[in-house]
Amino acid sequence: METSPSQIHEHFMNPLFTDFYQITMTYAYWKAKRHEEHAVFEAFFRKCPFKGKFAVFAGLDEVLQFCKEFKFTPEQIAYLKGQMSHAEDEFFHWLENLDCSQLEVSGIPDGTIVFGKQPLLSLSGPVALVQLIETPILNLINFSTLLCTNAARMKIRSGPKVKCIEFGLRRAQGPNGGMTASKYSYMGGFVGTSNVYAGMLNNIPISGTIAHSFIMSFDSEDDIKEQHYLDGTDIYARVKELREELGWQDTNDSELYAFISFATSYPDRFLALIDTYNTINSGCKNFLLCAVVLSELGHNPVGVRLDSGDLSQLSKDCKKLFKEIGDKYGHDYSDLVVVASNDINEKTIRQLNEDNHEIDIFGIGTNLVTCQAQPALGMVYKLVEIEGKPRIKFSEEKEKVLIPGRKKVFRIFEGEHPSFDILTLEGEDDLQDGVSLTAYHPFNDDTKEIGSVTKAQKLTESLFKDGESLIKQVDLKEKREIVLQQIKSFDPAVVNTDEKEYTVYLSKKCKETFDSLLNSQSVE
Amino acid sequence: METSPSQIHEHFMNPLFTDFYQITMTYAYWKAKRHEEHAVFEAFFRKCPFKGKFAVFAGLDEVLQFCKEFKFTPEQIAYLKGQMSHAEDEFFHWLENLDCSQLEVSGIPDGTIVFGKQPLLSLSGPVALVQLIETPILNLINFSTLLCTNAARMKIRSGPKVKCIEFGLRRAQGPNGGMTASKYSYMGGFVGTSNVYAGMLNNIPISGTIAHSFIMSFDSEDDIKEQHYLDGTDIYARVKELREELGWQDTNDSELYAFISFATSYPDRFLALIDTYNTINSGCKNFLLCAVVLSELGHNPVGVRLDSGDLSQLSKDCKKLFKEIGDKYGHDYSDLVVVASNDINEKTIRQLNEDNHEIDIFGIGTNLVTCQAQPALGMVYKLVEIEGKPRIKFSEEKEKVLIPGRKKVFRIFEGEHPSFDILTLEGEDDLQDGVSLTAYHPFNDDTKEIGSVTKAQKLTESLFKDGESLIKQVDLKEKREIVLQQIKSFDPAVVNTDEKEYTVYLSKKCKETFDSLLNSQSVE
Repeated sequence: METSPSQIHEHFMNPLFTDFYQITMTYAYWKAKRHEEHAVFEAFFRKCPFKGKFAVFAGLDEVLQFCKEFKFTPEQIAYLKGQMSHAEDEFFHWLENLDCSQLEVSGIPDGTIVFGKQPLLSLSGPVALVQLIETPILNLINFSTLLCTNAARMKIRSGPKVKCIEFGLRRAQGPNGGMTASKYSYMGGFVGTSNVYAGMLNNIPISGTIAHSFIMSFDSEDDIKEQHYLDGTDIYARVKELREELGWQDTNDSELYAFISFATSYPDRFLALIDTYNTINSGCKNFLLCAVVLSELGHNPVGVRLDSGDLSQLSKDCKKLFKEIGDKYGHDYSDLVVVASNDINEKTIRQLNEDNHEIDIFGIGTNLVTCQAQPALGMVYKLVEIEGKPRIKFSEEKEKVLIPGRKKVFRIFEGEHPSFDILTLEGEDDLQDGVSLTAYHPFNDDTKEIGSVTKAQKLTESLFKDGESLIKQVDLKEKREIVLQQIKSFDPAVVNTDEKEYTVYLSKKCKETFDSLLNSQSVE
Repeated sequence: METSPSQIHEHFMNPLFTDFYQITMTYAYWKAKRHEEHAVFEAFFRKCPFKGKFAVFAGLDEVLQFCKEFKFTPEQIAYLKGQMSHAEDEFFHWLENLDCSQLEVSGIPDGTIVFGKQPLLSLSGPVALVQLIETPILNLINFSTLLCTNAARMKIRSGPKVKCIEFGLRRAQGPNGGMTASKYSYMGGFVGTSNVYAGMLNNIPISGTIAHSFIMSFDSEDDIKEQHYLDGTDIYARVKELREELGWQDTNDSELYAFISFATSYPDRFLALIDTYNTINSGCKNFLLCAVVLSELGHNPVGVRLDSGDLSQLSKDCKKLFKEIGDKYGHDYSDLVVVASNDINEKTIRQLNEDNHEIDIFGIGTNLVTCQAQPALGMVYKLVEIEGKPRIKFSEEKEKVLIPGRKKVFRIFEGEHPSFDILTLEGEDDLQDGVSLTAYHPFNDDTKEIGSVTKAQKLTESLFKDGESLIKQVDLKEKREIVLQQIKSFDPAVVNTDEKEYTVYLSKKCKETFDSLLNSQSVE
């Protein structure tokens, strides 16, 4: 049931999905007859999001799809003519015929762990075209990368035993805020989503049980009259027996009716939301009444969901009661899960860990999908070369000065972990395993000398040429595995605890070009 | 060139665009033969966003469009069958035939100033259907309302003389994060957007000029060789004359070439980005060199854009230099504008106001479109009635207890300003102008007595019935006017300064129903 990745963004993604200044600049280039000059732009961010030390690059599927389909429609051209009434007709003819056949994209495959100041994408071609697509490309990679990083961070914080599911559709920033979140949280290490359509489009496992409203909709015994029986057994009668035996008559009746109805509908997927009334004294007990009956009939109840209260304490109380009742009735309830889902974020996960919670699955919504801790990634798209000449952009902040020239990224391993990344200029030979190397810090005089690198991994690949994507389609599940494997390969001080800075250095030639441009031009 | 509002969300918006638990619950209702029971859900938020005292309701166009088009496709049904392999075939037949013909929606028209705890939408119909559409409806109104409120707040803070333009597409949370932001910031009082496609779909004025990369792409005189002339005059020669006359030889040459090229392309829309090198000593002077030449040729230069630095001081310095040069060469430069666009948010606007800035237009991006100050609105969707019986949801926090029953909202005016809102129960007579009234606080014993209200404005309207929208299509520009008018009509302490709480009271009958349900059911 897998479909094209472009479907998560539909046909918004057309040439008009851009800032107007891209079009006004295009016209100025055209007027100056400079529109066909060969330019290289690079997309990168300066600081890793969430005050962390890494990011996971995402959104490439959508970028390549966009480039492939880039073409103005007559209706769009007519709209532009109305907005730019003084512009010459011939410009619009040129625009009508424009596509991405002259565009070349190279860069880092998505799902790669990336760092600040390294080119994630290099786009080259006629300056007017490459300028025109700045906005859509940034839109497509900014949020995807931010989201995927957020998910990866939450998954890492949750630890290897705890699973994370994305639950945020209702709070996402618009429909495909939600679609993007579902897709890229899965890639970042989540195990599934509540979003059914995202599940269908991207082949992501979906999950869901019941809401408070379902429980509240039950009032009297009459509401389950159709559902007393399961597999020929009067389960309502059996629940009442157990309830008396256990002295649990004080649990909430409406809740119990709701659980019986739900258990009858889902005998093998019974996961109950237990905090509508009193979490342990009503919800957990009512769940267990139904669970025991299901077990007696050979079904496997799944567990409970907590959506409020002290999640750590409640998870322990639930597990204790599961064991007690499992033991009493001879069922192994050690596999029953506790799902927790109230306003989970990195901070609450850390707190829950300190409290030694016994939660098995986090359902994470708002904080994940809107990236509440940092809702925007400041990815930029900068001109680094025109007509073969490197370009620099000065800034009063040294760290904001642009590193000129078209660059490639290599990941240098010393021993088992990646040790640093290094940028070389296009035209330099590729770095090889075993090479000896001096790496230069871009903004100060630090250098790093290595006698023989364990591995020099080239991250930059050709991604798009002659109007076609050059990367082999990797399915989302595989990309998810790649992300998880990479996280394992990095020093935990970089990816797990945000303690250690991972540096991006420059090759000798790259450093020399940078310095000579810095010296040749004055900032004024 | 106006098109259907649904276009900003495309066909994501289908019945699968929902949380899986909505579908699992639907199946449970169906199994219990309760799926046709008549239920009423209400959508509301508890707290106004941005620590403020009001919100602007938005997103209704998209909700009604979604309801109108709600229908599962055979492909979607097939997917669900695969996910719910134990479910009975007949359930899927029922689902296949489901549409919103039995749904009724009433509520508050979008563009209305709204407050916490009042029903923005009431949805009634078969419980399974109304449950199923919870997620998409919340998704469609949560972000739109949040964004529109954010825009209105920024516009209010900017004051009546300063215009605001939305510039955030590249940083938005996905493509229609950006589309939603453009549409609803215009409705909230902005004058335009940089987003061309949103401009085309929603008939919003678009604006844009040049980026740093355009300026950086110029290197030598050769780059303007095609553009020395405008209207037959050698403007480059004239610029050089002026430059010498003014002793401005130290301005950055590449920047000057870029401005000449842009002025030639846009003689009547010349607005220059002036902070690439040195804002005043290079950018502003280079702008004025071109501006004077344009003025001499009978064109009207527009102004400058600042994208970094001390925006307040720079705006004053620019205005001073505009006047000096305008006076010297006999041109009235009092209309030249200063646009400022670096990380503007409510806080920076307040600071700029305190510094008596002379900015004419704010270009606002990231903080507006991602609602950085609060990236999610916690709108909820709660069951308030089933089979004619009001429902309540308890909570340990008193303010979170649900006000039961289907409700209407009236806005009560005393004198010129709205004084408070009051909720009455469906079935109560509508409140009339001049009526005497006792209003009850929902969560304490406060009451408010009024001998004769100036105006009792009914906010709740019928919005959707028999599969069709009942509201007349109001175009976005008109809605924008309605928002601006309403803001003017409210006490400035509520909408301008966040000082005064605007209270939502209950009618006597509504309060009695609430209290009797509170007393009849125990929280356990």
